[in-house]
Amino acid sequence: MRGHERAGGIVMGDEVPSGTATRFAEVVGKQHLLTGDEISADYASDEALTESPRKPRYLAKPGTAEEVAALLAAAAEHRVPVTARGSGSGLSGAANPREDGLLVSFERMNAVLEVDTENHVAVVQPGVTLSELDEKTAAAGLAYTVYPGELSASVGGNVGTNAGGMRAVKYGVTRHNVLGLQAALPSGELIRTGGKIAKISTGYDLTQLIIGSEGTLALATEVIVKLYPRPAHGATVLAPFNDLDQVMRAVPKILSSGLAPSILEYIDTLTMAAISYNEKLTLGIPDAIRDTAQAYLVVGLENRDHDRLDGDVERLGELLGELGAVDVYVLEGPSARSLIEAREKAFWTAKAAGADDVIDVVVPRAAMPEFLAKTRELAAAAESGALGCGHAGDGNVHLAIFCKDPAKRRKLLHDIFAAGIAAGGAISGEHGIGQSKKDHFLELEDPVKVELLRRIKQAFDPHGILNPGVLFD
Amino acid sequence: MRGHERAGGIVMGDEVPSGTATRFAEVVGKQHLLTGDEISADYASDEALTESPRKPRYLAKPGTAEEVAALLAAAAEHRVPVTARGSGSGLSGAANPREDGLLVSFERMNAVLEVDTENHVAVVQPGVTLSELDEKTAAAGLAYTVYPGELSASVGGNVGTNAGGMRAVKYGVTRHNVLGLQAALPSGELIRTGGKIAKISTGYDLTQLIIGSEGTLALATEVIVKLYPRPAHGATVLAPFNDLDQVMRAVPKILSSGLAPSILEYIDTLTMAAISYNEKLTLGIPDAIRDTAQAYLVVGLENRDHDRLDGDVERLGELLGELGAVDVYVLEGPSARSLIEAREKAFWTAKAAGADDVIDVVVPRAAMPEFLAKTRELAAAAESGALGCGHAGDGNVHLAIFCKDPAKRRKLLHDIFAAGIAAGGAISGEHGIGQSKKDHFLELEDPVKVELLRRIKQAFDPHGILNPGVLFD
Repeated sequence: MRGHERAGGIVMGDEVPSGTATRFAEVVGKQHLLTGDEISADYASDEALTESPRKPRYLAKPGTAEEVAALLAAAAEHRVPVTARGSGSGLSGAANPREDGLLVSFERMNAVLEVDTENHVAVVQPGVTLSELDEKTAAAGLAYTVYPGELSASVGGNVGTNAGGMRAVKYGVTRHNVLGLQAALPSGELIRTGGKIAKISTGYDLTQLIIGSEGTLALATEVIVKLYPRPAHGATVLAPFNDLDQVMRAVPKILSSGLAPSILEYIDTLTMAAISYNEKLTLGIPDAIRDTAQAYLVVGLENRDHDRLDGDVERLGELLGELGAVDVYVLEGPSARSLIEAREKAFWTAKAAGADDVIDVVVPRAAMPEFLAKTRELAAAAESGALGCGHAGDGNVHLAIFCKDPAKRRKLLHDIFAAGIAAGGAISGEHGIGQSKKDHFLELEDPVKVELLRRIKQAFDPHGILNPGVLFD
Repeated sequence: MRGHERAGGIVMGDEVPSGTATRFAEVVGKQHLLTGDEISADYASDEALTESPRKPRYLAKPGTAEEVAALLAAAAEHRVPVTARGSGSGLSGAANPREDGLLVSFERMNAVLEVDTENHVAVVQPGVTLSELDEKTAAAGLAYTVYPGELSASVGGNVGTNAGGMRAVKYGVTRHNVLGLQAALPSGELIRTGGKIAKISTGYDLTQLIIGSEGTLALATEVIVKLYPRPAHGATVLAPFNDLDQVMRAVPKILSSGLAPSILEYIDTLTMAAISYNEKLTLGIPDAIRDTAQAYLVVGLENRDHDRLDGDVERLGELLGELGAVDVYVLEGPSARSLIEAREKAFWTAKAAGADDVIDVVVPRAAMPEFLAKTRELAAAAESGALGCGHAGDGNVHLAIFCKDPAKRRKLLHDIFAAGIAAGGAISGEHGIGQSKKDHFLELEDPVKVELLRRIKQAFDPHGILNPGVLFD
């Protein structure tokens, strides 16, 4: 609602030269505009497994929101495609640059500007990493509760993909925890949306529209995030089951119990073996149980009061027993942390194991058993593997796809996505569409909606400079 | 994500006649299309205090989503402005029809289609009232937690304004509790957005864009709402303070305590006197305390366990004492309900007392003391009154404005809204802009954002048939 700031007039030399690179260099300073061999290979891709790395023509590292806005204005004028990059930990290729394009890296805009303990918000620059933010908020007894697997991820990148993570079952995803933005438009203008306020009903919610738009509508230059009091006590409970279906059917029951878990994950047995091996996990599970377990449920509980937490853990143990768990392990400090960290690294485990793609279909949580059964059936028919783990409380299934043949894999993914949609879900719960799932998205999505999204895109970005090739062709 | 349904072909007579009314009647059936004197005065306005009632030219009562879509197609073809109406309990004139327009009343589309106890969602038609939904969900041990003051309000109307209410401090507003929509576009097409899923990162979030758009982008024809387990035990605590500032300064402290109140309201002393008198409240507060109290804090706590609730109430009582409360009253069942109901009726009390407008500025909650001080100062300078109560936990200040002179009132409102924006807030936290605050919105909002909103509007509604005069001129 504050007055907008118009960027421009940032000219360093005596005259404005015509070259595009020179123009960008004028905005960010020569030392922060790289071209050609100056650009390291790190900038050529994010973590999507299926996209080929390609260096951008220009790499700019702006230091202020005004510089970001001025870069966009210059890019629009020169019709140069622009891709934004946080930490490059995305899984859908939304931060993969174009060879003819400008990559805007937010690495210099990485400050926690404010931790406001009265309003329970933090104001951050988009390049700040989740681990940096966690450190700053912890010092104030507060927490930003969005923890996707990768703590080196940036808040700006999380805004782009609407990142989720394990605690979303209790605290929601990025969308539910970002209260306001400053954002640069392709016109070179800066706007502010929302604020340090939990609610607003004053025009269309641009904050929500920009979140999850994968850098195709506007670039966030400042983010106001919601913080929660940091619970003093936490416990992690691990329950092996002899049947994946049983795990899935336990999920709604646990959520109905009122125990309000902060984490509710499932891990299939192969994935558990792989992450245990990779991360050298010793969880104290007897071999006999490990040999028969088909899946595991990981439940996190937290409380400000230690006795209440103990009571909840006991109640949860009873409930898990009733629901078919073979045993229940309450993990103490270091083991609990190791398991959660190992689970967070499931993507790296899958990558190391040679997975050909990683996807994150979301379905209504009660539809998980049927959806997973269908997935197994499709993978078997394609002589491929689809193994995984996921945010069971959210119905968000993370699958590592093992299928070398590109055409066969494409068909398998299409069928899995279609099955997710048929179950009332969507292609992606938190990774986004990016470049890597765009074809499937355009094939499977209602064309009326795609056309509407295109018109919204056009409303923000008439020249189509922001991340062309992401979401749309 | 499901295939879209195209409306059309709904023709009842033998031939398509040219008259607009006939066209609408063909869609909904003659008995559900009213014109002229057939339209009762009830349909001429919502509850906004400042708008003059005016009957629409056409009133249609569709029975299905397809009929809604076909009505929009016909209205677009005939360039007839369309206003949607739920229960007509809005406070900003967003449901006030145009004299030359079609009013679409959702009164016949009022079914709870499903209460899904496994996924914790309900699927409802937009005309369903909150009290009907509450009854159905209570039977399943679940609750839809958005309770704006008026339980006769419809879910569809709540979607239009992004309604909030007292429990938003714990559970969020409509935006946080609607997971998916079916909506009719001005093109006559139906789309589905979101689903029975807590997260989605598959294209721009149309659910979130339509919520709070006050009937200017699309009309919701089905709503998927999130349900929570219904806590078994609740308590309401009333604390009088001798100083309004003290109340405001207590709010962040209570929220930092981890007690996670489900209600955190302030009521100023005059408003408390008025609602107590109007609702014949007997709260057992001694006269001596009532005479000196300047404001009250109302705190709701809930728990699935009775002993834990007792422990929390005790802790809250101590905390309130430390924060300056003169006394602390734990209200039992009927008194607690009466107080909450009386607070919910604060609007009606203000109306009965002759208030000239009711507004709901939202500011960062820590900015409430300064904002309220500024408001008192502005009202005093204008020889007017600005009294109220509000969702203290959300920084959402509800003020009844007493100022008969329209020009003076306009200036006072402008100054109060500007003060709210200067404090980092917005004109409305949950009532919306509608027709009644549009002039202030357009004066005070960043023109770059207004222009962007216009372009988004254009992307949905190229002929501008949906609620013209709301949000924009």
